[in-house]
Amino acid sequence: MTNRGRVVKFATGNLHKFKEAQAILFNTGIQLEMVSAKTMEIQSDDLTEVAVASLRDARSREHGPLIVEDAGLFVESLNGFPGPYSAYVNRTLGCDGILRLLADSRGRSAEFRSAIAYTDDDLRLRVKTFLGVVKGRISDEMRGQRGFGFDPIFIPTGYDMTFAEMGVEEKSQLSHRARALEAFASWYLS
Amino acid sequence: MTNRGRVVKFATGNLHKFKEAQAILFNTGIQLEMVSAKTMEIQSDDLTEVAVASLRDARSREHGPLIVEDAGLFVESLNGFPGPYSAYVNRTLGCDGILRLLADSRGRSAEFRSAIAYTDDDLRLRVKTFLGVVKGRISDEMRGQRGFGFDPIFIPTGYDMTFAEMGVEEKSQLSHRARALEAFASWYLS
Repeated sequence: MTNRGRVVKFATGNLHKFKEAQAILFNTGIQLEMVSAKTMEIQSDDLTEVAVASLRDARSREHGPLIVEDAGLFVESLNGFPGPYSAYVNRTLGCDGILRLLADSRGRSAEFRSAIAYTDDDLRLRVKTFLGVVKGRISDEMRGQRGFGFDPIFIPTGYDMTFAEMGVEEKSQLSHRARALEAFASWYLS
Repeated sequence: MTNRGRVVKFATGNLHKFKEAQAILFNTGIQLEMVSAKTMEIQSDDLTEVAVASLRDARSREHGPLIVEDAGLFVESLNGFPGPYSAYVNRTLGCDGILRLLADSRGRSAEFRSAIAYTDDDLRLRVKTFLGVVKGRISDEMRGQRGFGFDPIFIPTGYDMTFAEMGVEEKSQLSHRARALEAFASWYLS
């Protein structure tokens, strides 16, 4: 029996994130279904730990193959800030806050990370995790209207555009989320 | 039977915080005992919610009367940042990061909040919570060597000194932590 064509639930409160993930997995034959249940998140500097805790929480309400994703922007000269708290920091300080923190020409190296945790319907809570990383730098100003979160200030290495200036397709060829989802899909379909 | 003289465990990984709490409760007759177990913290904008989740986690390992405390600095013009993530933000950006975020003369109003969650040894996990708040403003520069965390940049309303310039006794007459602990002590001893 193959997993191609099977439905996998994606527990997230972020519609942007869901749509992006759906587009990334479209060609693999995995059908994503959004489960909008707000998952509990723990405080940890480790994205994978956060994702696994959220998965266990979502598992208590949802049956069937299930993934959660936790993503974050890690700025090197800010000791990894905002990291696992990227959603909160985006809500309170926005992209502008990161630019202000880097205003006195600190190093602008940064990376986006995406951690995915998966579990199937097995009674023993078997969990698999996948990490995707894309390196880049923080731009000098916000640019672009696409994407979400810190996309307007992140320029992936080898490019001049921010994630928010790229189309979904272009972003999906190199993004942290795409890399994590592709690792998941490749394992899930094999 | 009175609770005076009884030992209450305080689950925290922060020795500064423990010593401060111990000094605040000294005259009440409540003896604090540090339980250094690292507690699990959830991501939530509500300090009390964070404290209650940490308490339930610590409860699974510790018996007897038990408290946990979660504290945060809430800067009004930063939409409450760093709030419940104050420990993480202090570790990554430090006091200097908050000063940089306020450099372009945004409003400097802020408050420190402390949430305490308590449970006794009752089999039904009965939880009581207490909140302490102190209003003030963010200083223009770091001042003082005492205290910990964001103390060097917080000036309580009606004072010219930062928390880090005050002695433990003076800080304990007005701090968020003192207010929350006094509310707890007054309830616990009655």
